[in-house]
Amino acid sequence: MSFELLSRIQSPKDLRGLSETQLEQLAAEIREALLSIVSDRAAHFASNLGVVELCIALHLVYDFSVDRLIWDTGHQIYPHKLVTGRFNQFSTIRHRGGLMGYPNPAESEYDLFVTGHAGSSVSTVLGMKAADDLLFSDGRKSVAVIGDGALPSGIVFEAMNNAAGLNKDLLVILNDNKMGICPRVGGVASYLDKARVAPFYNGLKRDVSWLLNKVPLVGESTEKMLSSFKDAVKSFLHGGMLFEEMGFRYVGPVDGHDIRSLRQYLELVRDVKGPVLLHVFTEKGHGFEPACKDPVKFHTPSPFRRDGDNEIVPVKKSSVISYTEIMSDAIFDAMHEDSKVCVMTAAMCAGNKLERIRDEYPDRFFDTGICESHAVAFAGGMAKSGMRPIVDIYSTFLQRSFDQIFQEVALQNLPVVFTMDRAGLCGPDGPTHHGVFDNSYMRIFPNMIVMAPADELEVRPMLDFALNASSPASIRYPKANTEQIQRDPAEIQLGKAEVLSWGTDGNIIACGTMTCRAVEAARILQNEGLSVGVVNARFVKPVDELVIARAAEAGFVITIEENALMGGFGSAVLEAAARRGLNTERFRILGIPDAFVEHGDRDALLADLGLDTEGLCRTARQLTPRPATVS
Amino acid sequence: MSFELLSRIQSPKDLRGLSETQLEQLAAEIREALLSIVSDRAAHFASNLGVVELCIALHLVYDFSVDRLIWDTGHQIYPHKLVTGRFNQFSTIRHRGGLMGYPNPAESEYDLFVTGHAGSSVSTVLGMKAADDLLFSDGRKSVAVIGDGALPSGIVFEAMNNAAGLNKDLLVILNDNKMGICPRVGGVASYLDKARVAPFYNGLKRDVSWLLNKVPLVGESTEKMLSSFKDAVKSFLHGGMLFEEMGFRYVGPVDGHDIRSLRQYLELVRDVKGPVLLHVFTEKGHGFEPACKDPVKFHTPSPFRRDGDNEIVPVKKSSVISYTEIMSDAIFDAMHEDSKVCVMTAAMCAGNKLERIRDEYPDRFFDTGICESHAVAFAGGMAKSGMRPIVDIYSTFLQRSFDQIFQEVALQNLPVVFTMDRAGLCGPDGPTHHGVFDNSYMRIFPNMIVMAPADELEVRPMLDFALNASSPASIRYPKANTEQIQRDPAEIQLGKAEVLSWGTDGNIIACGTMTCRAVEAARILQNEGLSVGVVNARFVKPVDELVIARAAEAGFVITIEENALMGGFGSAVLEAAARRGLNTERFRILGIPDAFVEHGDRDALLADLGLDTEGLCRTARQLTPRPATVS
Repeated sequence: MSFELLSRIQSPKDLRGLSETQLEQLAAEIREALLSIVSDRAAHFASNLGVVELCIALHLVYDFSVDRLIWDTGHQIYPHKLVTGRFNQFSTIRHRGGLMGYPNPAESEYDLFVTGHAGSSVSTVLGMKAADDLLFSDGRKSVAVIGDGALPSGIVFEAMNNAAGLNKDLLVILNDNKMGICPRVGGVASYLDKARVAPFYNGLKRDVSWLLNKVPLVGESTEKMLSSFKDAVKSFLHGGMLFEEMGFRYVGPVDGHDIRSLRQYLELVRDVKGPVLLHVFTEKGHGFEPACKDPVKFHTPSPFRRDGDNEIVPVKKSSVISYTEIMSDAIFDAMHEDSKVCVMTAAMCAGNKLERIRDEYPDRFFDTGICESHAVAFAGGMAKSGMRPIVDIYSTFLQRSFDQIFQEVALQNLPVVFTMDRAGLCGPDGPTHHGVFDNSYMRIFPNMIVMAPADELEVRPMLDFALNASSPASIRYPKANTEQIQRDPAEIQLGKAEVLSWGTDGNIIACGTMTCRAVEAARILQNEGLSVGVVNARFVKPVDELVIARAAEAGFVITIEENALMGGFGSAVLEAAARRGLNTERFRILGIPDAFVEHGDRDALLADLGLDTEGLCRTARQLTPRPATVS
Repeated sequence: MSFELLSRIQSPKDLRGLSETQLEQLAAEIREALLSIVSDRAAHFASNLGVVELCIALHLVYDFSVDRLIWDTGHQIYPHKLVTGRFNQFSTIRHRGGLMGYPNPAESEYDLFVTGHAGSSVSTVLGMKAADDLLFSDGRKSVAVIGDGALPSGIVFEAMNNAAGLNKDLLVILNDNKMGICPRVGGVASYLDKARVAPFYNGLKRDVSWLLNKVPLVGESTEKMLSSFKDAVKSFLHGGMLFEEMGFRYVGPVDGHDIRSLRQYLELVRDVKGPVLLHVFTEKGHGFEPACKDPVKFHTPSPFRRDGDNEIVPVKKSSVISYTEIMSDAIFDAMHEDSKVCVMTAAMCAGNKLERIRDEYPDRFFDTGICESHAVAFAGGMAKSGMRPIVDIYSTFLQRSFDQIFQEVALQNLPVVFTMDRAGLCGPDGPTHHGVFDNSYMRIFPNMIVMAPADELEVRPMLDFALNASSPASIRYPKANTEQIQRDPAEIQLGKAEVLSWGTDGNIIACGTMTCRAVEAARILQNEGLSVGVVNARFVKPVDELVIARAAEAGFVITIEENALMGGFGSAVLEAAARRGLNTERFRILGIPDAFVEHGDRDALLADLGLDTEGLCRTARQLTPRPATVS
């Protein structure tokens, strides 16, 4: 297929001249463009297939060069990028230096916020609306598109509560595809499921009269009751009571793959006063059958192409094992051995590879939906009653539980275990997904134990250690394939580092999987005549002060971590050095500098930041007073 | 009044033998006990007066030695403490070493979680229930009591969503007194206001039939619709649709000051299957008229007594000015000068002393309710549109916005200003309210500027500086009376410390109001023959590396901050020293050690931690090689 129409769309304004038939063709071309990129990279796919028509209709009805639009989460931004002048760069998406796989204000005025964590769209759109009403008189509109997966996030309800209180003209579009990344769960999910069977999926006309005739609440108490009753019955017949009770007008549902209907509905609600929720039914993967049938697999599929029979052929099959898999297996075995062990995920059953646990131990598997704050407090409750809960959440998303880690876990000193997947640079997802702050934020609170395995051999022992601790404990590991350091690993003991070797010129104290790089660097430096020791820190908290003191006795000390330098592991080492009054003139701490890191291949990004073997060698040479090479 | 009955209540079991008349008398004695303590200390008052009968009824119907009960937030725990064997210690409440003003598991098996941040009760109670169902077969019950002020907190909805999905037997009691600390706001507030005028406040009998006759959803789609319609109409007549739609059974409302009704209702819902919301109407301040009339003032009143005419007489009138007031005035003036400046509070209009701003600039004053996550994302939206929002939230509560500070503010580099009140030890409220982590968590994220005024003279210049910055900026200040350092303060410049003096024996680099203590310590040490300089750091981020390097040239360097040592300002100084390769053998960082700090008088707590003039002197002497006194 050629991109006859799509290639001519320089801006959303170019959509306006297209006929209905052309718009249909454009939708097909957008789908083709989406298919073209997933043949050579992992990229968000099914969700983007589902919003093609919605995206077109939105840009037809609104002018988002002044109106405000947030896609929540941003991974459904691809069609929007294609119709806002980025078709020519589209093949670069998720590649280093190319388009971001999320909205990016640096790319386009049509992207307002970088959004990778779900649920904050209603808040930001409400904020923009509140400000626009104060600053501009052009009546610019505000729209948030939020998936049913993100809907139960607490911040959405906080924002709806505030929007209703402020009575701002605001459109929240519920993109209801029956899914998060995994199938949706919880009371709101059941509510939306019920909405699907209700016999009201049939008419714009009724919605018009509903909006026009809504009786204002006036007069005496009895009168109020009557009109309120009328409202309630109408609202029930209409559906959407949950949102109506929150103070939103509920409109829809409407078929999210019918551009014409969408357009009519959007034109209808555009000028309604007060907050409106438009319920749009879409199909995740729409227009590509394999993705419709298995939207979980096709959320971010591995690269694939279609063969002559239109069958899916994986482009490459990976046989390597990830840290995620090792941890998932370790959790499975821990649950097998101890019936008190249970696990929580926040809608990341697939990402955390917990399917086998879900199926085998459904009683002890808890998917809270995208509700990280609740998940952690819930785990606190379980620990209080005597269970041994494991909270399995990506490092970056766990940030949403910061206050619950404080109050419901650390302050109560409850033995909750945090397995922090995707700790470190997360690759093509970019800055919203890099998990580079957890070393800093997990060690702030008293009682917390913070660990990082150096290689795959330490994953299980650390999980066992955490499950036997009487305090909360966390384990961080990267989105990466596993590695192994050849040795007989020492037993895990609280606050004890593992000394792999002592150097006479200096020592590297490495955090987590950076240890593998340190071992390699020491080997290279040895060939250059430098004796550099390697310590596997194991514990970010408590750090091993004795080992730090010993390391400082011989030459330089380099710490390295895949985490922000601000307050991270290196800082903890410096704090320990200060406690012991060590001379730190020849201490250097390596980590992520104080800037957000773009998207790209993890190894390439690490190399750029000097967080690789070569970077370590370079730093070691700089810290060595004598010539580093034997001549 | 004597405490004839109350003094005999050793455990909730002792309530069971009391007649209805005696229970009424007990309620009166509890109120008297509450009144007795507010005569000599600031303590939570009106909210506790409001839950006396509810507390008694709960302990009559449930056995919380096995059943689970969480008061959310915990400041309404006083009657509970009185009936769970703590009457004799009650006079010590909120005093150092005495009872905590919040639930405290260390005091009693009847206190399960230390709860000072609102909204997490439903999560923890659900967690305990889920665990209890796995671990015990005694059918123990779970109850959360949550105020209507805390209800809109996102985590409550997250937990209700999960509770409905898990269909756990769970009782959530909505303690509806029409108030948070300040009057409630938002869509949920309007919803609850409407419930007040609905004519259904009349009967247990109807609630019984409602619970018994609820038609299960079975059969064909049409049938489903019919029964669903029946449910809806019943539910509407009944009220509580919002909760019903979320998947909870809604029961009530019931008069929260009628022990008999409460008891009947609690007995009714105790054995209902699935999650139930019991709506209880209470009056904040009930039984003490001045508190009913002004529940905001009497939330945590200054000490008062009643005179012969039963009029309120303040025990002492304070004429000193707090940092809160200085900042509130500065914000007011900034809003007066620039119509782009606006302010957000999260239900702390009174605590943050924003009443004048609310009344004078209602268009630019936003109270989000106890929804800190939303407040910050909302501010991000406002900044995006060109406003200059100030987020005015206590340091400890801002922890709930950690991820929004990351994604919606720092990552987008939007100029949101955070004024972090109560940064430092917060006195009698204790560990849930101490704001001792913000130096650590605010400096983690790129783009963030972090400041702390040394005295009242710097509050305004720092706010001005923040409002003119092109990046997000934060300002921390303690819950304390203002102080002044005599000097002509230098202009605020990004990352520049203010050098008050240079020492030849050593230098103290002080963060925020610790500077006053450093000045005093330097004076004392000077009398002992030690030349100790004082630097007012001003910036936690970026730190002033040049000044740190210069300070290190002469003797020791002591940093001091009213914040956790883990990752705090001292850490930032050590990081800078490491970047410059400084010798830090004689660096010492002072701050809050890695443990939660109890409640008590701020100055006493600081002294204990060595964070006072004497502590500074002691550390300086220790770091000085020669005899410290001139002989």
